[in-house]
Amino acid sequence: MSEFAERMKTMEKSAKIIRNLFGAMNDPNIISFSGGAPAKEALPIDIVREITNDVMRVEKRGVEALQYGNVMGLPDLREVVVRDLLAPKGVQAKADNILITTGGLEGMNLLCQLFINPGDVILVESPTFVHCVEIFEMFQAKCVAVEMDDNGMVPEDLEEKIRKHDPKIVYVIPTFHNPTGKTLSLERRKKIAELGSQYDVIILEDDPYRDIRYSGTDLKPIKAFDQTGHTILANSFSKIFSPGSRLGYVLASDEITAKLFDAKTATNSHTSMLPQVICAEFFKRGYYPAHHKMICDLYRERRDAMIECIDSFFPEGTKRIFPDGGLFTWAELPGGINTTDLLVESTSNPNVKVAYVAGEGFFIEGGGKGNNCMRLSFGGVSPEKIRIGMERLGNLICPMVR
Amino acid sequence: MSEFAERMKTMEKSAKIIRNLFGAMNDPNIISFSGGAPAKEALPIDIVREITNDVMRVEKRGVEALQYGNVMGLPDLREVVVRDLLAPKGVQAKADNILITTGGLEGMNLLCQLFINPGDVILVESPTFVHCVEIFEMFQAKCVAVEMDDNGMVPEDLEEKIRKHDPKIVYVIPTFHNPTGKTLSLERRKKIAELGSQYDVIILEDDPYRDIRYSGTDLKPIKAFDQTGHTILANSFSKIFSPGSRLGYVLASDEITAKLFDAKTATNSHTSMLPQVICAEFFKRGYYPAHHKMICDLYRERRDAMIECIDSFFPEGTKRIFPDGGLFTWAELPGGINTTDLLVESTSNPNVKVAYVAGEGFFIEGGGKGNNCMRLSFGGVSPEKIRIGMERLGNLICPMVR
Repeated sequence: MSEFAERMKTMEKSAKIIRNLFGAMNDPNIISFSGGAPAKEALPIDIVREITNDVMRVEKRGVEALQYGNVMGLPDLREVVVRDLLAPKGVQAKADNILITTGGLEGMNLLCQLFINPGDVILVESPTFVHCVEIFEMFQAKCVAVEMDDNGMVPEDLEEKIRKHDPKIVYVIPTFHNPTGKTLSLERRKKIAELGSQYDVIILEDDPYRDIRYSGTDLKPIKAFDQTGHTILANSFSKIFSPGSRLGYVLASDEITAKLFDAKTATNSHTSMLPQVICAEFFKRGYYPAHHKMICDLYRERRDAMIECIDSFFPEGTKRIFPDGGLFTWAELPGGINTTDLLVESTSNPNVKVAYVAGEGFFIEGGGKGNNCMRLSFGGVSPEKIRIGMERLGNLICPMVR
Repeated sequence: MSEFAERMKTMEKSAKIIRNLFGAMNDPNIISFSGGAPAKEALPIDIVREITNDVMRVEKRGVEALQYGNVMGLPDLREVVVRDLLAPKGVQAKADNILITTGGLEGMNLLCQLFINPGDVILVESPTFVHCVEIFEMFQAKCVAVEMDDNGMVPEDLEEKIRKHDPKIVYVIPTFHNPTGKTLSLERRKKIAELGSQYDVIILEDDPYRDIRYSGTDLKPIKAFDQTGHTILANSFSKIFSPGSRLGYVLASDEITAKLFDAKTATNSHTSMLPQVICAEFFKRGYYPAHHKMICDLYRERRDAMIECIDSFFPEGTKRIFPDGGLFTWAELPGGINTTDLLVESTSNPNVKVAYVAGEGFFIEGGGKGNNCMRLSFGGVSPEKIRIGMERLGNLICPMVR
C-alpha cells in the first residue's frame, strides 16, 4: 500500500492520547470527569426546534439553509459575532474579518495551513490542550513549552523562548485554560499582545471558555490589546450554544483573512449552513442572555460542588485551581501518586468507576512531568454525581499517599 | 508579519481561479451557467423542517443532534450510506469503513493529509475539477494530467504516466465528470481498479454525480472492482440531499480508515451533527426514492433544454457532450474563439449577461489548452432561462466565428 505521509508519523503520539480520550467518554457505567463536553441540560434543544420550524417556512431562508453558502460564513452570523460576542468584550471588529469555522478547532487547523512549514516552532503553554498539539504535530510543527504559574503563561519565559526559538505562532488559552482552569492576568494579556508585535510573531488566542464565567471580573481578550494585527482570536460556539453544531470563528487582519478564504475553500468549501442559520437566529431573536444565565448558574453549582469535594475528599497537600469559569479544574496530588496508573484502577475497580484525564498527556515536555496531576471536568456531571464520584475517588487515593 | 507557509504559494494559481468562480456566482442580474449548485427546487426544505420538528421533540435525539458526536460520523448515517447508497450500486461495505466528512471535498483534503508529502505526484484527468487541484496544490502535490477521450480517462496513458511519475494518488471523477459531463466506460473502470492494485497506487474515485442519472445504464463504481483496497471512494450528499449541509463520505480500507480518524480529529473533530441526524432520517423514513425521482425529472428537462439550445444556437462545428446525468455539459467552440476573452464580453454586454466557466482553468497543463471550451451548468437554471441565456450567448458567438 502507498506509504503514509510524514505528518501521520509526527502526530502519532498525540493522536494516541486523543483516541484514548474519546474511548473513555463512551462507557456509560463510569462517572466521567474526563470529557470536555457541555452538560446536556445546557443544550438549547427546544429553541433549535422552534427556530428551525419558523425559518424553514420561509422559502428564501430554507434555500439559504440548504444551498451552498459563502466560504467565509453566513453574513448574519458574522454580524452576530461582531455585535454580540466581540464588542461587549472590548474588541472592535468588522464582519469582513470574521471567518466562520467548523468548530473552534478548525481555526487552529486553518492557521497552521497558513503559517506552518515542517519544522517551524509553535510555543505552547505547559501544560496545554493536547487536541491542538495533535493539530500542530500533523503540520509537523515543533512544539516548545512555555512556563505557566497561577496567573497563566509567564511572559518572561515566553520572551526568552521567542528569542531562542524564533517561533511562527504562540498558542495561548488565556481564560479558564484547558486543562488547568487558570486565567491569564490582565497585565500579561497586554504584555503578550505587545510581544507579538515586537517580535513579529502570531499570538493565537484560543478562547472558547471565556463566555462562561461564574465569578470574578471579566477580562478583555489579548486581541483587545493588539495594535498591529499580530494577535488572531479563535473562538467557538460549542460552550455557549452547541458543540455538535461545530461552529467557531476566527478574527484576523485583512491580509490573513484573505488567505483563510483560500485555506477554508480547500478544506471543506464552507461551514454547514443550517447550524449557522439557527445559531444566528438564536442570537438575533434575543435568546442568548437568558440561556447564558441558565448555563452559568448550572455550571457554577457544579464547579462549587467539585471544589468542595476536592477539599473534602482528596488527601491533605492536594493543590487545586479554583476556576472562575469554564469546565475544568486541575488537581496536583501529594505523596508520589501516579495519576496515569491510578486511572487504570479508578476506571476498572467496581467500587470506584470514575474517570478523569491523567495530567501527563498535557505536557509536551514528557519525562513524567504532570504525572501527579489530573484534569477534572465538572461540566457534564450533576452535583449529586460529582459528590458520589469524588468521594469514591478520594477513598481510593487517600490510602495510597505515602 | 510572519511569513506564510510554502503551501500558500503553490496553491495561489488555482485559488485565484476558484475565487473568480465564487465571485461570478453572486451577480443576480446574470443568467449563470457557471456554478455547480443544485437547483433550489431540488432542496428538501419541507422535509427538513418536518424531520427537525419531530426529532427535536425526543430529548435523546435532541442531545444527539447538539452534543459532541463520533469522529467517524453518526452511526445511523454511516449505515444509510452502506445500505441505501453503496449496496444498490454493487459495493459491499461495512459501516466501520465509512467516514462522514464535511462535504465531499473534505474527503480529498483528508486523503491528502494521509498520503501527500510535498512533491508527491497526483495524476488527474485532463481537464479536471479545479477545486480539487487547489486542494492538491495546498498539499504541494505535483499534479500531472492524464488524457481523456469520450469514454473518460484513457487507461493506456494512465499506465504510462504511473510508470513514469510513480504517483501516490490517481484522482478520477468517473461519472458525469466535472467539467465535461463524460462517463468512464465499464471496462475502463475495471482496468483502472486493476492498475491501482498492480502498481500499488491509490485510486481516488470522486463520484458526487453518480446518483443523478437521467438516461443510459447505471455503471458500478470503480470501487466495486477493487480487490486490494487500493481504491478509495469519496462521495457527497450535496447533489441528492443538500449542498449547504456539507455532508459527504469516504469508503476506505481498515488501515486507511484508522488514519482518517486521526486526520479528521485534527481537522474539525467531527462533522456537524444536526445535518447528519436530519439526513439519516431523510433516508430512514423513506423520503429518498420520491425525492430522487423528482430531482432527476427536473434535471433531465434542463439537460435536454441545454443540449437542444447548443445544437440550435451555437455555431456549426461546435462539439458538445451529451451527459447521461450530473449538472454539466462541455462545449468546444470552432473558429478560434477564446472563451476566457468571450466571458468578459458575455457577462458585461447588457444584451447578453450570461456566465459560464471558461475551459482553460480546468487544464493543469496550461499553454492555452481548452481556451476554446466552456463548462455549461444546467442544474440551477429553469428551461425557460436556459433558452433565453443560450440564445443570447449563441447570438454573441456566431458572428465571431472566423
